[in-house]
Amino acid sequence: MNREQTIALAQAAEERLLSEGRPAIPCSVAVRADSRTELSRYFDHTLLKPEARASQYETLCREALQLRTRTVCVPPDRVALAVDLLQDSTVEVCTVIGFPLGYSSTSAKVAEVDLTRTLGASEFDVVIPVGRLRDGDLPAVYDDIRAVVAAAEGSVVKVILETALLTDAEKIAGSVAAIHGGAAFLKTSTGFSTGGATVEDIRLLRMVAGESRGVKASGGVRELAFVKACIAAGADRIGASATAAILANAAGGPEGNDGY
Amino acid sequence: MNREQTIALAQAAEERLLSEGRPAIPCSVAVRADSRTELSRYFDHTLLKPEARASQYETLCREALQLRTRTVCVPPDRVALAVDLLQDSTVEVCTVIGFPLGYSSTSAKVAEVDLTRTLGASEFDVVIPVGRLRDGDLPAVYDDIRAVVAAAEGSVVKVILETALLTDAEKIAGSVAAIHGGAAFLKTSTGFSTGGATVEDIRLLRMVAGESRGVKASGGVRELAFVKACIAAGADRIGASATAAILANAAGGPEGNDGY
Repeated sequence: MNREQTIALAQAAEERLLSEGRPAIPCSVAVRADSRTELSRYFDHTLLKPEARASQYETLCREALQLRTRTVCVPPDRVALAVDLLQDSTVEVCTVIGFPLGYSSTSAKVAEVDLTRTLGASEFDVVIPVGRLRDGDLPAVYDDIRAVVAAAEGSVVKVILETALLTDAEKIAGSVAAIHGGAAFLKTSTGFSTGGATVEDIRLLRMVAGESRGVKASGGVRELAFVKACIAAGADRIGASATAAILANAAGGPEGNDGY
Repeated sequence: MNREQTIALAQAAEERLLSEGRPAIPCSVAVRADSRTELSRYFDHTLLKPEARASQYETLCREALQLRTRTVCVPPDRVALAVDLLQDSTVEVCTVIGFPLGYSSTSAKVAEVDLTRTLGASEFDVVIPVGRLRDGDLPAVYDDIRAVVAAAEGSVVKVILETALLTDAEKIAGSVAAIHGGAAFLKTSTGFSTGGATVEDIRLLRMVAGESRGVKASGGVRELAFVKACIAAGADRIGASATAAILANAAGGPEGNDGY
């Protein structure tokens, strides 16, 4: 998908939303990573396995403190634990909303944001209603995201498109609906579908996001070389569980920590 | 796991819940299938793929009407469509709550039940907080299920254990917490984990459920022979997407529809 095709599809999506009375709302969250930011600050250090025990979340938070990641990304029912373990640190707590299938009702997504925000989460990764997007019902996607953004009250909302399930045209339309709805980031994947982040998708999402919104690469991110390729393609946030191994390679590998 | 071991583990779980101030609450829903019930009435005809379009849910509902299944099982954001298509029929609408990972907050699960009940859903399949169960935190599992049962206001709540992630002892403890919390059914699987229903698990859940609660086999149910084995082991509800093919074999196979 080249730039001209992308712009044309994005404009068509914008026109569709405007014709249905859904204006773009501003996003005041600054998301672009400083080019001098150290690599660890790109990372949402992530554990989202349903069977994980409390002790595994304690390990996750300890690693995040040692590695100085940007956040830990944990399930809603582990937010209180993570907030407690990370108080007085620079590591924030991110959680997931309507995860991983995206088809829970908007009211449940809003209730999840309300509760976890009160508990101390400051970033919210929400899955779009994928089937609605594939129905071509962009206003439904916009309304869902808009309600979550409103509930987040200025905190970062990252919108997960689940790119593996979408055509390029659907990725663009979904991105436009998310951005117009006030998303701070476009995010590729949940890690629970048929595929994860690709460099091509990062490049596409960056074209649609422009300079005002972030792009998060997630799903199957396990190698330093892939992380660097995603950042080069436009990612300014990385979701990974193998953060420690990735950063160990960055610090000790032949190239060292080359300026991220 | 034999009957004596099962009873001992169930009693230990009950004592744990009682010592934490969680009494068993009654379940007034009649769930056991009549032995003369026709086979189609065992089925929750199910479509839960995140990428499914509205047209696929229309097909699902049309099939359910033709086959005379007990319910259709659809995502929360497709309940309104299904209720509309199935009005004035005997096919009820079931939806999924906290699905498929179970770690969404209780308040989000309750909001999901509230909304979908208002829209016309009458059965709610909720996933337990699996990690809490594996922590040994039975009161947390009980409280989560109890809140969902209260929100359902007398409608059927089926509690999904996600048996593939659990030891036999955890399956028993989770079942006791669900039953004490007011669940009408124990259900094996989401279909989104590492495994689905097994005959051994159905037998185990039936031992814990006794005669007062139902057992639903779900996850990977595709063959008539397996459906019959699950029913023989104690299942009184079946979740499947391949319902039409299974019932076609029941009607036309060498054994015919032998009395289910």
